[in-house]
Amino acid sequence: MNEALKRLEREMTAEGLDALLVTDPKHVYYLTGFASNPHERFLGLLLIRGEEPVLVVPALDAESAHASSSVSSIVTHSDTDDPYTLLKERFGPSLRKLGIEKEHFSVASFELLSSAVQAEGFADIGPLLRRMRAIKSPEEIARMEHAAKLVEEVLSQGLAHVREGVSEIELVAELEYLMKKLGASGPSFDTMVLSGPNTALPHGVPGSRQITAGDLLMFDLGVFADGYASDITRTFAVERADSELVRIYDTVLAANEAGIAAAKAGASYGSVDLAARTVIDKAGYGSYFVHRVGHGLGMDTHEYPSLHGLNTDIMESGNVFTVEPGIYVPGIGGVRIEDEVLVEGGGARTLTRFPKGLTVLTL
Amino acid sequence: MNEALKRLEREMTAEGLDALLVTDPKHVYYLTGFASNPHERFLGLLLIRGEEPVLVVPALDAESAHASSSVSSIVTHSDTDDPYTLLKERFGPSLRKLGIEKEHFSVASFELLSSAVQAEGFADIGPLLRRMRAIKSPEEIARMEHAAKLVEEVLSQGLAHVREGVSEIELVAELEYLMKKLGASGPSFDTMVLSGPNTALPHGVPGSRQITAGDLLMFDLGVFADGYASDITRTFAVERADSELVRIYDTVLAANEAGIAAAKAGASYGSVDLAARTVIDKAGYGSYFVHRVGHGLGMDTHEYPSLHGLNTDIMESGNVFTVEPGIYVPGIGGVRIEDEVLVEGGGARTLTRFPKGLTVLTL
Repeated sequence: MNEALKRLEREMTAEGLDALLVTDPKHVYYLTGFASNPHERFLGLLLIRGEEPVLVVPALDAESAHASSSVSSIVTHSDTDDPYTLLKERFGPSLRKLGIEKEHFSVASFELLSSAVQAEGFADIGPLLRRMRAIKSPEEIARMEHAAKLVEEVLSQGLAHVREGVSEIELVAELEYLMKKLGASGPSFDTMVLSGPNTALPHGVPGSRQITAGDLLMFDLGVFADGYASDITRTFAVERADSELVRIYDTVLAANEAGIAAAKAGASYGSVDLAARTVIDKAGYGSYFVHRVGHGLGMDTHEYPSLHGLNTDIMESGNVFTVEPGIYVPGIGGVRIEDEVLVEGGGARTLTRFPKGLTVLTL
Repeated sequence: MNEALKRLEREMTAEGLDALLVTDPKHVYYLTGFASNPHERFLGLLLIRGEEPVLVVPALDAESAHASSSVSSIVTHSDTDDPYTLLKERFGPSLRKLGIEKEHFSVASFELLSSAVQAEGFADIGPLLRRMRAIKSPEEIARMEHAAKLVEEVLSQGLAHVREGVSEIELVAELEYLMKKLGASGPSFDTMVLSGPNTALPHGVPGSRQITAGDLLMFDLGVFADGYASDITRTFAVERADSELVRIYDTVLAANEAGIAAAKAGASYGSVDLAARTVIDKAGYGSYFVHRVGHGLGMDTHEYPSLHGLNTDIMESGNVFTVEPGIYVPGIGGVRIEDEVLVEGGGARTLTRFPKGLTVLTL
């Protein structure tokens, strides 16, 4: 049994729960090593106090579950079985308090579960799992370093395709091809390449616009590798950078560095946002920094914690999150610089190492 | 206002609901034309009887929502706002029955909603939306034909990369590169290329295995284009096909054709599964066909209806679903042949047109 599963079993006892039902495929992977995408089919890990854990998987994943799961008791269900009847039998009639993942469990599934399983109460184990996941083990950090290195190699090789006439979506295609070619499972989110005025859209969608001299060119990309995500943003100038763009760039870079410098165990997550935001506010661009400074990163591209200014939760060693301030001036352009930060020792270090000075690309 | 939104408003009145809250980004797109991925941020379309529809979006999507939404009343919230407080104000104090998407709404969000919004009851509008979505409009069918044509072009060009020494994941990379290059938004699910004994895993994951003479080679792939998915599977032989593989192939092809022939308005979805399954049962491979025959396809790669043998719901003109029987014999190999089927007229036609006869590829 892996360490995370052991810890979860201890927590179950400590919190007075009789049983747990883990349904997020990511968490099933985290706790058993079995990775799958069950689509709308039922997947669940059942932990009943005093009993051996049981993994419930769709019949067509049986072979793969047996091959990779550290939990050896595996029950399958076919597309015509009702998995909730199966749960009812497993949990038995005398369930007092059942822990479920309330953020992952839909209201519809919950209505089926609660009519099949007679529990006196349902507790949310989501916060516990997300706290566990927010502290990365050395093995997880090694995987995340690998995913970060991969995406940096993708970005590095991808820059060779910035040429006269190339469009945003063609660059996206090249980058995603490189991800696969270099061994990633795939992008960890929709790869974003924005140019010129489009860089002013913080969630813009790459289109057929061709890269032109004088553009800002923003890359926001990440990969999944071995189940862990990376996420990096770099913004370049094409052929030249006028003085206002340089001023915006330098402000964002200073904000990125201030955010990273504020990351340390014992301080609040909000302090990282505030450190970056203060730099941008002082430079007069405060109203153009319209999002939080970052988000936790791990098996999900966006996970706990959320790094916004009001988050008073406390950083701990092993936390990994992004620091990605940006300034987006409609009609002029936008700059964002994003690193992955690992809290450790008395401070933090970045898992991303791609150079951050303003780089002018030639077509 | 688009047709689907008008119909939803009529249904709201017919079902005695005071208001609806639509939260699935796909449904927000379906009803307003605004496509987005809000990640964990709140996105919702509010329909209150007798009032103008209101779209609630994260602040950083404001510009994009204004540009594409047919609903012009747009309210934004920042990362530090509580969207449920905003909903409470909008819905007001006298809400009797609120319709929500119970399959999309998490138990955690529902607890926040139901403590902020004092409704007497919550109805599930999921079944209504999925019934609406299951009948494709001519415009949706045109988009799906385009997505099918795109993925067939990808498959066709991708086959040129089947060469001595190429691996499953290299073929995946080539195919996904072609998707982007040919103008798809991206794959509609993880592209699957499996070879040799790996084809016996109905949900296998492509790996570094190199394609070899004597292999079966299975491609299961699809793209998203203009918000709609395609999905096709073809299985090839490499260099040669021994007699048992030919027998398996012919059985699956006959099952695929029997399934398609059974598709017609007025019959049950289950009859399509049974028609295909009967062919495979009779050939003696029944225990190797371990999944339902298909699934609805549209804005989601898997959507209503589920085509399993017990589904007694009735087919209607405008339904689009996959017919994808397969036989998977451990140690020997697997064959699956999947088409997209549109129910229309007195029968059905396929949106996929890639040849289905057993094709032997040369390395």
